[in-house]
Amino acid sequence: MSVETPKVPPSAQITFRVRLRTRWSDEDTQHVLNNAVYSTLFEEARFAYFSKLGLLEDNEFPFLLAQTSVLFLAPGRGGREVEVEVATTHVGTTSCTQAYRVREVETGKVWCEAEARLVGFDPENQRKAPLSEAFRRSIESVEGTSRDPTAAT
Amino acid sequence: MSVETPKVPPSAQITFRVRLRTRWSDEDTQHVLNNAVYSTLFEEARFAYFSKLGLLEDNEFPFLLAQTSVLFLAPGRGGREVEVEVATTHVGTTSCTQAYRVREVETGKVWCEAEARLVGFDPENQRKAPLSEAFRRSIESVEGTSRDPTAAT
Amino acid sequence: MSVETPKVPPSAQITFRVRLRTRWSDEDTQHVLNNAVYSTLFEEARFAYFSKLGLLEDNEFPFLLAQTSVLFLAPGRGGREVEVEVATTHVGTTSCTQAYRVREVETGKVWCEAEARLVGFDPENQRKAPLSEAFRRSIESVEGTSRDPTAAT
Amino acid sequence: MSVETPKVPPSAQITFRVRLRTRWSDEDTQHVLNNAVYSTLFEEARFAYFSKLGLLEDNEFPFLLAQTSVLFLAPGRGGREVEVEVATTHVGTTSCTQAYRVREVETGKVWCEAEARLVGFDPENQRKAPLSEAFRRSIESVEGTSRDPTAAT
Repeated sequence: MSVETPKVPPSAQITFRVRLRTRWSDEDTQHVLNNAVYSTLFEEARFAYFSKLGLLEDNEFPFLLAQTSVLFLAPGRGGREVEVEVATTHVGTTSCTQAYRVREVETGKVWCEAEARLVGFDPENQRKAPLSEAFRRSIESVEGTSRDPTAAT
Repeated sequence: MSVETPKVPPSAQITFRVRLRTRWSDEDTQHVLNNAVYSTLFEEARFAYFSKLGLLEDNEFPFLLAQTSVLFLAPGRGGREVEVEVATTHVGTTSCTQAYRVREVETGKVWCEAEARLVGFDPENQRKAPLSEAFRRSIESVEGTSRDPTAAT
Repeated sequence: MSVETPKVPPSAQITFRVRLRTRWSDEDTQHVLNNAVYSTLFEEARFAYFSKLGLLEDNEFPFLLAQTSVLFLAPGRGGREVEVEVATTHVGTTSCTQAYRVREVETGKVWCEAEARLVGFDPENQRKAPLSEAFRRSIESVEGTSRDPTAAT
Repeated sequence: MSVETPKVPPSAQITFRVRLRTRWSDEDTQHVLNNAVYSTLFEEARFAYFSKLGLLEDNEFPFLLAQTSVLFLAPGRGGREVEVEVATTHVGTTSCTQAYRVREVETGKVWCEAEARLVGFDPENQRKAPLSEAFRRSIESVEGTSRDPTAAT
């Protein structure tokens, strides 16, 4: 397959994590967490991450998803507590890249790892826009010096 | 970003396509089709593809998703008719790779392209299993000789 | 139970019907259409009904749901074609009442019947508002004289 | 409208409540919690209620939904914490009735009240079945003597 495996930093290097619950109906007839639900878990984790940074006004994300890469490592289940790790691994002028890891709390098992590229979006005018300077600085403050935001392309 | 863009064959080389509808509630508060819904559209397209091949018994997929790569090209909307192209681009002994393209019918605009790797799954015993010979032969029959299933890794 | 059964007119008296598809993932681990999906099917049917009347501007409903009553008659399934009947059974100044029936196309089996009360909503100001005169007249035109909109409370 | 308002006991008389979260994507383009999501919240609350009673084996509900009645009292939002109250208000031989109330934790505002009738279901044979004696006794133990399960029809 031409798609490379998502590159997610080791858990020890990720400082942000959030507890979420999968719902009973998130499990499909194959008795695993339906694949689309992982996209929703990443979105919930982004929501928690950017809320904590004070970057969301009335629930509005200042970006849209441009690209994702997801690796399903173990079958998930509905009705379980999970911890989702989030790291912003690159910040550019118009986009940034994040990495995610979903781990079941009870068993410690990693269900899924993923990367996503987010592009700046102006909800007012419904079009792409550069990431604001405040947005970039907030992310750098939370990600600290353990990550070099200029290293990636 | 470390994730490569999904490699989807040109539309002219893809023989399977299915008409689907996005739902009104698939659109989120950013007034675009929520990103998780694309995973559901790919799943619906897989369902139509494997149903046509007669490979689904009572709605059961004989595989699980192992990996996906999705490129969002234009903002989608709810309540619209879309055409989803599906091609199996590689068939191995335990997994196969598919490519997808979502196009809005009314405008002809491509909203999304993606790749997915599927691994054989035995629903009876809830574990991974090789793809059956019948499964492999059916796919080769529908994909014809325009694609070389042995070329990819 | 204190809840009365929804009163849905016989199919022969309902003039509007729309074909919809349930999705593979709409089926839950009990192997039936998840109950929440019926709410989405009614919403899709409302969307088709009011779109046909020309009453929706850029996907926006000029009302909110105030109350529903749903009777589940037979287990539904994912990946099936259904026909949903819609009738507006009462139009008032601030709200109207609709009735719905979901029937599987292949078997003719009725899965579900429901009623819903919709109250006028001004999306601009995010608050309740009377139903517009145009809205009321459009509904009366489609429902014809077979129904007396002044009979109900 | 022919549908009566759901009869939900006062909060002071309900002993079971569970904290749940609405998701960002649960909010629709009208900027309110989509109506179908309430059905999912009630389902999650049932899941917590019957899990606590030890009545669920591997996530399987021993009943199906037969009827619901929902009253939407205030617009809900995505990304919020809610408390859902659950009371079983009647237990019969083949079905039972529950009442629900959804309250936003931060504001204390009640968004929604509902009733549901559940009928016994045998997942093994995919058909209706009487509620087991164990099921009935467990519910009576949690609901205590404040409710008379023989009073309702």
